[in-house]
Amino acid sequence: MIDLAFGKTGGLLPAIAQDAATGEVLMLAYINRESWEKSLATGEVHYWSRSRQELWHKGGTSGHVQKIKAIYVDCDNDTVLFKVEQVGGAACHTGMKSCFYRRVEGQELVSEGAPVFDPRKVYGK
Amino acid sequence: MIDLAFGKTGGLLPAIAQDAATGEVLMLAYINRESWEKSLATGEVHYWSRSRQELWHKGGTSGHVQKIKAIYVDCDNDTVLFKVEQVGGAACHTGMKSCFYRRVEGQELVSEGAPVFDPRKVYGK
Repeated sequence: MIDLAFGKTGGLLPAIAQDAATGEVLMLAYINRESWEKSLATGEVHYWSRSRQELWHKGGTSGHVQKIKAIYVDCDNDTVLFKVEQVGGAACHTGMKSCFYRRVEGQELVSEGAPVFDPRKVYGK
Repeated sequence: MIDLAFGKTGGLLPAIAQDAATGEVLMLAYINRESWEKSLATGEVHYWSRSRQELWHKGGTSGHVQKIKAIYVDCDNDTVLFKVEQVGGAACHTGMKSCFYRRVEGQELVSEGAPVFDPRKVYGK
């Protein structure tokens, strides 16, 4: 039995999604026990949406699910690393592959790369 | 000016350290404004220790500092990704390279790899 430290931080733990093939860090979001168990059961990453306060099946709307290739747990059981295949090629709601597409340059953030999809088309906004 | 969302979560944001050369995710810890500014100013990662409630210069005791090669900020300004050179070759207090050295296999966690250093020698415990 894998005992994650959900009790430590009010029920939510950070979860990192990393591209299993390239090693690129795609995003960080949060999981609660329900989303953890759902991820294990389905093989697709489920987070807990803090803004919507609900179970969040990543890609449930866009089809851009994260297929789990491997899961790692850190040394004190309070962070999870999902190695995934990112369907659709992009994890970020902006259409960028990774949510970490802005690099610190001095006092500025500079965008790198180009969007993989047009979020207006995918989300209908 | 880079405006991280420290106000969103009580002053602490998660920060991921990733090996700049290999892409391996090394650890996740937390930063507050002070540790963020200290990291920018020194070029070495500073976290905020939640257990000790103090500024934590990673490697300050062991010498295994994290030299910052690049910093990325996520799309909603509430997570930071440090790409680092991990001095000493290991980020984890157990002596393993990464804190994410245990893989989920069914209902178990299975350790992968071998320690880079002996923590009893490095920390004198």
